[in-house]
Amino acid sequence: MLNFTYHIPTIIYFGKGQVCALEEELRPRAKKVLIVTGQASAKKYNIFEDVIKQVKKAGIDYVELSGIEPNPRLKSVYKGIEICRKESVDFILPVGGGSVVDAAKTIAAGVRYDGDVWDFFVTDAKPEDVLPVGVVLTLAATGSEMNGNAVITRQDTQRKLALYTPLLRPVFSILDPEYTYTVDRYNTAAGVVDIMVHVFEQYFSRTPAADVQDRIAEALLKVCIRYGPVVYKSPENYDARANILWAGSLALNDLIGDGKEGDWASHRIEHELSAVYDISHGAGLSILTPSWMRYVLGPETVKKFVDYGVNVWGIDSGKPDMEIADEAIDKTLEFSKSLGLPTRLGDVGITDEHFESMAQRAIETYGSLGSFRELGKKDIVEIFRMSL
Amino acid sequence: MLNFTYHIPTIIYFGKGQVCALEEELRPRAKKVLIVTGQASAKKYNIFEDVIKQVKKAGIDYVELSGIEPNPRLKSVYKGIEICRKESVDFILPVGGGSVVDAAKTIAAGVRYDGDVWDFFVTDAKPEDVLPVGVVLTLAATGSEMNGNAVITRQDTQRKLALYTPLLRPVFSILDPEYTYTVDRYNTAAGVVDIMVHVFEQYFSRTPAADVQDRIAEALLKVCIRYGPVVYKSPENYDARANILWAGSLALNDLIGDGKEGDWASHRIEHELSAVYDISHGAGLSILTPSWMRYVLGPETVKKFVDYGVNVWGIDSGKPDMEIADEAIDKTLEFSKSLGLPTRLGDVGITDEHFESMAQRAIETYGSLGSFRELGKKDIVEIFRMSL
Repeated sequence: MLNFTYHIPTIIYFGKGQVCALEEELRPRAKKVLIVTGQASAKKYNIFEDVIKQVKKAGIDYVELSGIEPNPRLKSVYKGIEICRKESVDFILPVGGGSVVDAAKTIAAGVRYDGDVWDFFVTDAKPEDVLPVGVVLTLAATGSEMNGNAVITRQDTQRKLALYTPLLRPVFSILDPEYTYTVDRYNTAAGVVDIMVHVFEQYFSRTPAADVQDRIAEALLKVCIRYGPVVYKSPENYDARANILWAGSLALNDLIGDGKEGDWASHRIEHELSAVYDISHGAGLSILTPSWMRYVLGPETVKKFVDYGVNVWGIDSGKPDMEIADEAIDKTLEFSKSLGLPTRLGDVGITDEHFESMAQRAIETYGSLGSFRELGKKDIVEIFRMSL
Repeated sequence: MLNFTYHIPTIIYFGKGQVCALEEELRPRAKKVLIVTGQASAKKYNIFEDVIKQVKKAGIDYVELSGIEPNPRLKSVYKGIEICRKESVDFILPVGGGSVVDAAKTIAAGVRYDGDVWDFFVTDAKPEDVLPVGVVLTLAATGSEMNGNAVITRQDTQRKLALYTPLLRPVFSILDPEYTYTVDRYNTAAGVVDIMVHVFEQYFSRTPAADVQDRIAEALLKVCIRYGPVVYKSPENYDARANILWAGSLALNDLIGDGKEGDWASHRIEHELSAVYDISHGAGLSILTPSWMRYVLGPETVKKFVDYGVNVWGIDSGKPDMEIADEAIDKTLEFSKSLGLPTRLGDVGITDEHFESMAQRAIETYGSLGSFRELGKKDIVEIFRMSL
């Protein structure tokens, strides 16, 4: 296990009706709030009304920024920053899923920064003075409700990049499983797979003896495997929604990543894909991750796949290692398929046209990808090809 | 899953050499520190010197309170409060295991309180203004390094009671696995079993569908079962010490308890025992918990024991439920025995002399015990008898 500093000060209000905590949380922290929403569900299903009621009870002014895109765009962030400056906003309240939360966090980082907020994604510049962010989450997947990450897409240059600073950890997040009832089946499924891949990125690691983290990672995967099919078939099953929602937060709040070296190759490859094709992040991962697994599987990595197969999928530990690994990867792909997700690039109409340029951009940005197995440009192209 | 609020602001510095974080953490927070230590290891093995070096580097004054007892006594707490008031101490720094940390936290709660600090244990009075506490942990077991609990023994009335307030969550805790190398085999083993019983208290619950919490609980138990024998046999095995240490913190920081009803009968019964006999808490739990398990096992509770047996001990799920449950309880007891711990009251020279009065005191304090199965006085006496 590696040395680490673990610090998650975000207050989580979890459960039915927890939006009522908003009033008390906002009152001492805010004078004027920017409420950020996406393109659909929050406004459609009374969640927005619940939030407004609380903001008004707290006696706080608000302005709105709606219409944040999936794969949120830099131009929406600029718009939010402009509103905040003009309206003297002092608190950002995203009501939505990962895209809305990430856009809100990036706005929070940009308001008091003299330069271009995109600097934080492409240069060494770090946010120093950010507006506080509180989250009302409506989709299980991102983990952004409990961490300091934000991922933004700049369309003109087809770049999708991530920002990290502990300053952007939300001060509070409200997680009401009922608020995720309205997420459609496709996005629900994509969210479940996104959570699982967040776990994989931290689980498949060469750091030895991080058993606490690894057994907890397996715990979260088992929850996804048990309840993924339930939320897919019965979107209003409270217990299933609750377990997926809480697993999503714990999958990417540092609990299973601290003390280990992470990999993150699958995410970085997927970000190149969804920067160009604007497909759902979870769908992109559903397609690419099994290929990544097959590509990195080898004599030095097989033991980790055996752990995965035996502890998560219950595969008989008596079988040969490579057989267990292959079966585990098959099961991973079959699971996505059973949730109606694409598992080949062809399923979403993507051809080999941009493989080279996407791989090239990944290498330009990161040098190389991954630590479980280090990947260069050729490797990335091969993973794309295996996913055709 | 029940509604919950999850909030763990404690900063954890985990790993080799992390004591160096002390300087930066103390400097802005403290002018004069009370360093609290126990009866042995911290001073004996250079840990104390490491700490003093940091305190001096931070340019901070300090006073000392040493000699805190296992099952820490109220009179030591009074002494600490007196020192703090006289010396205008503004920060409490325990360097030790659970007893030292709990005494330090109780001192922190008492310094600015006009009444008797024991009020917080026996009346509705709640601490409102506490001194900040930072921890340097030297024994894996308590969980106190990340939570707001403290357990104190008042000898004259043979009461051992707990205090809880989120205000007493340490502002930081330093967890260096090497600092636990010097714990002797008996206390190491008792610590491992204490961690496991902390998990049991939250795992054995009637709250349905708290899968995230339950799978993580099982993860922590598996870590204890894997590494307990290793730390027992090889006290300087870093990876084993690290996993046990981190499992101990996560076992009692709310992660596996939030969203569920806890039981805590085993702990409350044990507290009556160690208030009278002053045996080690982990040893008391090692004796009592398997009896508690056997006593509460029945048709309504067996499913949870099946989960425990299958998921934690790998017992064949094809066996009849009651057989799995019995086998799981046997394995629990055998595990303690393999670590050299007592598993019968007779092993530590305790007879049935005080069964009635200890059970009576538990009932007077708590009304009834437990929620997985509610226990009255007769039940407690029976659990003592089964442990003879």
